[in-house]
Amino acid sequence: MRTAIYPGTFDPITNGHIDIIERASRMFDRIVVALAVNSAKQTLFTEDERFELAVESLREYPNVEVKRAHGLIVEFAAAEGALAIVRGLRAVSDFEYEMQMAMMNRKIRQEISTIFMMPHERYTYLSSTIIRELARYDADIADFVPRCVLDALVARRPAR
Amino acid sequence: MRTAIYPGTFDPITNGHIDIIERASRMFDRIVVALAVNSAKQTLFTEDERFELAVESLREYPNVEVKRAHGLIVEFAAAEGALAIVRGLRAVSDFEYEMQMAMMNRKIRQEISTIFMMPHERYTYLSSTIIRELARYDADIADFVPRCVLDALVARRPAR
Amino acid sequence: MRTAIYPGTFDPITNGHIDIIERASRMFDRIVVALAVNSAKQTLFTEDERFELAVESLREYPNVEVKRAHGLIVEFAAAEGALAIVRGLRAVSDFEYEMQMAMMNRKIRQEISTIFMMPHERYTYLSSTIIRELARYDADIADFVPRCVLDALVARRPAR
Amino acid sequence: MRTAIYPGTFDPITNGHIDIIERASRMFDRIVVALAVNSAKQTLFTEDERFELAVESLREYPNVEVKRAHGLIVEFAAAEGALAIVRGLRAVSDFEYEMQMAMMNRKIRQEISTIFMMPHERYTYLSSTIIRELARYDADIADFVPRCVLDALVARRPAR
Amino acid sequence: MRTAIYPGTFDPITNGHIDIIERASRMFDRIVVALAVNSAKQTLFTEDERFELAVESLREYPNVEVKRAHGLIVEFAAAEGALAIVRGLRAVSDFEYEMQMAMMNRKIRQEISTIFMMPHERYTYLSSTIIRELARYDADIADFVPRCVLDALVARRPAR
Amino acid sequence: MRTAIYPGTFDPITNGHIDIIERASRMFDRIVVALAVNSAKQTLFTEDERFELAVESLREYPNVEVKRAHGLIVEFAAAEGALAIVRGLRAVSDFEYEMQMAMMNRKIRQEISTIFMMPHERYTYLSSTIIRELARYDADIADFVPRCVLDALVARRPAR
Repeated sequence: MRTAIYPGTFDPITNGHIDIIERASRMFDRIVVALAVNSAKQTLFTEDERFELAVESLREYPNVEVKRAHGLIVEFAAAEGALAIVRGLRAVSDFEYEMQMAMMNRKIRQEISTIFMMPHERYTYLSSTIIRELARYDADIADFVPRCVLDALVARRPAR
Repeated sequence: MRTAIYPGTFDPITNGHIDIIERASRMFDRIVVALAVNSAKQTLFTEDERFELAVESLREYPNVEVKRAHGLIVEFAAAEGALAIVRGLRAVSDFEYEMQMAMMNRKIRQEISTIFMMPHERYTYLSSTIIRELARYDADIADFVPRCVLDALVARRPAR
Repeated sequence: MRTAIYPGTFDPITNGHIDIIERASRMFDRIVVALAVNSAKQTLFTEDERFELAVESLREYPNVEVKRAHGLIVEFAAAEGALAIVRGLRAVSDFEYEMQMAMMNRKIRQEISTIFMMPHERYTYLSSTIIRELARYDADIADFVPRCVLDALVARRPAR
Repeated sequence: MRTAIYPGTFDPITNGHIDIIERASRMFDRIVVALAVNSAKQTLFTEDERFELAVESLREYPNVEVKRAHGLIVEFAAAEGALAIVRGLRAVSDFEYEMQMAMMNRKIRQEISTIFMMPHERYTYLSSTIIRELARYDADIADFVPRCVLDALVARRPAR
Repeated sequence: MRTAIYPGTFDPITNGHIDIIERASRMFDRIVVALAVNSAKQTLFTEDERFELAVESLREYPNVEVKRAHGLIVEFAAAEGALAIVRGLRAVSDFEYEMQMAMMNRKIRQEISTIFMMPHERYTYLSSTIIRELARYDADIADFVPRCVLDALVARRPAR
Repeated sequence: MRTAIYPGTFDPITNGHIDIIERASRMFDRIVVALAVNSAKQTLFTEDERFELAVESLREYPNVEVKRAHGLIVEFAAAEGALAIVRGLRAVSDFEYEMQMAMMNRKIRQEISTIFMMPHERYTYLSSTIIRELARYDADIADFVPRCVLDALVARRPAR
């Protein structure tokens, strides 16, 4: 069985992430979406919220599961028996950091490959950061996130 | 059976290419190395030479085969029943053209994904262009190409 | 009256070009599409064909005209009384060359500004080069070029 | 009447900003400099100081006004009846984020275009960040900022 | 006597830094490693620790000394009588910021040049940030840092 | 004695090149300007013309000499006893190819370092290509090239 992991903070999960997961799920027998929980980053949603939103959004993909990942992602991948780490690439600025991490991960676990996929062009400009910014100003984001994420973002808006 | 194609001109095939093919061959059931034959590019080696050198260099990988590809690569991939097109990424300058081609290919055949892999860091600076340049000046390239390619390059050197 | 020019080779004009012209035509009183005719580049279409296809494709924009431009673009702009040179930017690799040209043009004619616009995301991966390549293999390009260009490309295909 | 907005934090306004405003003011009937006030960013100058310095520095341009912008910039632009959002581009690293924002803004308000302009080459390396850093060490910055900003920066220096 | 400075935060010094210092020390009569002490950045190691680790790691290079640098680096360079500021370049994203700083430094002290060097390819993906991240998870970093830094990082790990 | 080489095609030498040579000549005891003569590139000026223009333009620098370089540049550097190869960097697009060449050269001759320098900002947009283009249209290039190059370019203009 061939497993790949797809790591991220998913704060929150977007249609751009799901587009990549959907395509990866056709290439591998099993995809583990690895929710990074040890990050020092401040997040909008709690770890439990991010987890629940990812699970809810990916319910229809039978060979995709969501797990919390502690520690180095490449070691999590090894523990899951993964062959590959899947990363989305949208822009040149993503690319260099990703290349450095891919080289370092290969140095640590030479049997695991990093593969990069591109989201649909309509998600080129989509990031969790932009989603959070738009949501803050009540902009319409229904095209960019799954229904459950939309509801969760609306629920967080301050009353007026 | 999951198939991926790995297209290129392979003029000549290098250890950087083989590094990527080797890793891809563990992720898919079958890899088709697609030798682009319709290119307007001037090549050092003829189509037959490039084909033979690729076949010879990949003999040890049972699930890798080499084929000549006419026409659009994404249509060749469809004809082979491939799920994915594998591309190597070494540098930012590769990245943008590759991203444009990946988007266009997705537009033409939405069921086929392009995935990007990085060669080992020791091949970061390796390209067929640099190999041809080095070979022209008798520089030592034994670390960068398979044995059969080394022999073919040496055989082409002018007598002194 | 505020004039801007939009220079290019237009070999052939695509929907990406037209998207930019349409938006520029709302910002300026007059847009002159400047067909570069002195280029050493080999083109698929002759100068007259490129001119006719551009004129035909832009018929519906009353404040847009197409002219042949000889010599330096910045001098052509000055002769037209233009305030601005409009350029499309799709990618980082475009960006640097464009920035260099913009600086040089400013040095030559300091009163003329270069402004950059981005095409719709669906044309991010679109270039005349890719259109010519796709057309060569009979790929479907109806979404990417105006009707008259589609007809002209089909007419060039070799009989089978 | 054609309006464009030029948004920013202006902490503080520099000669690079003014160079772009001056050129934009010749292309549009009216420029609204939109001081972003809702940012979470820590600023050196208060909102009122940044506003006053911008107003003072732009006094000589009759068709330029400075306003505070709350909420999404693209909605501010719409409220001002603007056709265009003007952004300065100095470097590749600016470019990608700007391209993503431009695409997102176009998605939200399709009638508003983002246009990019380059500052004079002598301001290529100029940013508010670098100005603040230089000012902190008493470096000479008279070439880079208007007189009123220079005075404001000097006034903030700790007594020795 | 020709002096160059090599500035940085060195939090901690890595084999990538030492690779560059070693090569620079063959090109100049004297290298001053300039430990930036006024930075607002949060560091893992204190200023004294960073200084001691750099001194210890560079003991074997007779023409290299380590000094604390206050204020603008280019003024520190002038005070040391340096001809050049040496900077390592690993990636495009480094490059632009570095180019801006180099231009600004040249503006301030026109007699001092910035020169860029590249680390060995095996350190392409190496940064103090990645080292700190790896050390936090007990990953093996013996190949990337000098012995004294390894010991210092191990000593900081929490007991289990 | 410390020697560095500065290789290039110099078709023709520009003020941007001379700016870098001038600065490098203060850092090294001896600079050898290495005119690449084996290139397959079509040049505007003949090898002899490019050589004479470089010699003439660099007459005032006592520790700079111009030589023709055959074969691999890194081997030419070794034959000259050089410690370093100096390269100018203007843009991100230069950067990546240069980084690949630098890594390859280090692999071939590990004792020779490549160092990168930036031209004055006023030459950021200057390249031999742009100079040739401008000269072709009689644009004023007196600010960008030494006197002898200006004369040579004027002499080549077709009579009218």
